[in-house]
Amino acid sequence: MTEGTLVKVAECLKAASEVVILPHINADGDALGAALALGLWLRQMGKSVDVLVEEEVPSNLDFLPGLDLIKNHPDKRYNVALNIDNGDIARLGQREPYFHEAQIKLSIDHHATNRVEADYSYVDIKSAATGEIVYDLILEHLGGTLNKDIALCLYTAIITDTGGFRYTNTTPRTLEISAELLRQGIDFPYVIKKVFDMVSHTKLYLMKQTMNSLRLLEDGKLAVSYLTFEDIQKYPVKSDDYEGLVNIGRNLEGVEVSVFLREDPKGHFKGSIRSNNYVDVAAVSEKFGGGGHKRAAGFNVSGPLEEVILSVVAAILPGIRGNS
Amino acid sequence: MTEGTLVKVAECLKAASEVVILPHINADGDALGAALALGLWLRQMGKSVDVLVEEEVPSNLDFLPGLDLIKNHPDKRYNVALNIDNGDIARLGQREPYFHEAQIKLSIDHHATNRVEADYSYVDIKSAATGEIVYDLILEHLGGTLNKDIALCLYTAIITDTGGFRYTNTTPRTLEISAELLRQGIDFPYVIKKVFDMVSHTKLYLMKQTMNSLRLLEDGKLAVSYLTFEDIQKYPVKSDDYEGLVNIGRNLEGVEVSVFLREDPKGHFKGSIRSNNYVDVAAVSEKFGGGGHKRAAGFNVSGPLEEVILSVVAAILPGIRGNS
Repeated sequence: MTEGTLVKVAECLKAASEVVILPHINADGDALGAALALGLWLRQMGKSVDVLVEEEVPSNLDFLPGLDLIKNHPDKRYNVALNIDNGDIARLGQREPYFHEAQIKLSIDHHATNRVEADYSYVDIKSAATGEIVYDLILEHLGGTLNKDIALCLYTAIITDTGGFRYTNTTPRTLEISAELLRQGIDFPYVIKKVFDMVSHTKLYLMKQTMNSLRLLEDGKLAVSYLTFEDIQKYPVKSDDYEGLVNIGRNLEGVEVSVFLREDPKGHFKGSIRSNNYVDVAAVSEKFGGGGHKRAAGFNVSGPLEEVILSVVAAILPGIRGNS
Repeated sequence: MTEGTLVKVAECLKAASEVVILPHINADGDALGAALALGLWLRQMGKSVDVLVEEEVPSNLDFLPGLDLIKNHPDKRYNVALNIDNGDIARLGQREPYFHEAQIKLSIDHHATNRVEADYSYVDIKSAATGEIVYDLILEHLGGTLNKDIALCLYTAIITDTGGFRYTNTTPRTLEISAELLRQGIDFPYVIKKVFDMVSHTKLYLMKQTMNSLRLLEDGKLAVSYLTFEDIQKYPVKSDDYEGLVNIGRNLEGVEVSVFLREDPKGHFKGSIRSNNYVDVAAVSEKFGGGGHKRAAGFNVSGPLEEVILSVVAAILPGIRGNS
């Protein structure tokens, strides 16, 4: 895809009267922030704009300006549909027909895995967030200017997909765009608090249980933690609630390898394994039929908890001792 | 203080042959990062440079380039001394004589409370970090250029004092400087991991105990957590290990006020109190002879734990119920 198609996307939007913007299901801060920023500017251009989402707006994004643009399933057709931050049209869920029924189908995204077919599809995998693409689209191709509302949406988009400028996808351009967004006087510490700091009751409980289970072995170089099915049953746990629990052990001073195990209803364990500096945890995971990267991998294993821990530890020790 | 004095600081450094750079005691990422960045450039200019520190370099900063510039208490005098990131010469500790004995005394800092007397003292309170001042000093006044080592030091300085671009002191300029630092190809996710993610055994233990103690009252709007003296005795706890523990409750969804109590050896409790949206916790703290800001305050209180909790809760409830 080339810059040219972003120009084409802009031309189609300029010519449109009724636009529908379609982020992926479970819209996150980038999908929703980018969609609302663009929606706000298109409305300012005099277009009729709807942003359709599948679910309720999550409480950590309920501060976003432009939420009045959001509808669920209106009985309406649009002349232009824009798929946004979504690499697969099937991930529009129930809203897929709005895309297919539009006269002109557009798409902008930054995922390398994008396989969307549209009249004009722009994919820029160098952008850390779709919010960066929308920044260019508004300012360079739609004659737009920033205002505080649009800046707040785009800032939310960018920090969501860069972990607050911490992930490797963060570029100098990411920071330069964000500098311009800050110049609009947005309350960015509030956004950070909403997007990153708020913890659900479920998550706090899982963190606490994980910490309580944590064992250190091999002079503190190996951390093992776990959640049993009994632990998990107490709260309505969603799969992304487990995210980051393996890092409680990994981030502890002196730890080289952290393993986190969680039990499913059938008594099987799903293992996540991380290393900090030298142990190849993909090789460890392969011993259990799993896989991954050198510093982050996963596997499945069955058996009673203590036996599972023993076998996983036995598989890790040679790597820690430098004779794997 | 004016920009003029930064020019004067630069002129004195240019004329110097032997320079000593003096960060404050317990040098953090900004003090050490700024000192080493400047030290590296001055050495490249052909100067003899020592960076004197009081303590061991903390393990979360042991990756900084230029650590070979660091000495403790050399038997030496310098013609130019530069106090850096330090608002009070007494905070040089045992190294104070190196400053007073130098022929020319310089100082650069960003603290509003700065009261350093020097031949030339530059204080810029708009800079989020002293690292930003050093960036300008090197590039605009000392004819310097960035390299990867200097960029890594300055990036560490800036993220330390802005909490990774999250605090209100972060400015558009902070992000623009950081964009230039990223252009040097530094491994910034590694720096983030070292500076922010690593947790000590003591800290993890305190977090775990705090989570285990956490009680929710008033429909989950009030979180109370504590550490008893018995809890604290088990690890070699330093006062900054308590930092952030009150936020475990504050960041929990639905919580308006979080109180964290810790017991001292005499059975007194030190209370930290935070609110998210509407309760004036300074007013609550004043009832116990303490004080602070509307969203963050502290107090001291004596008595058995459960009685202390009851009296603190009683003081908070009217504010939460909206009839304080």
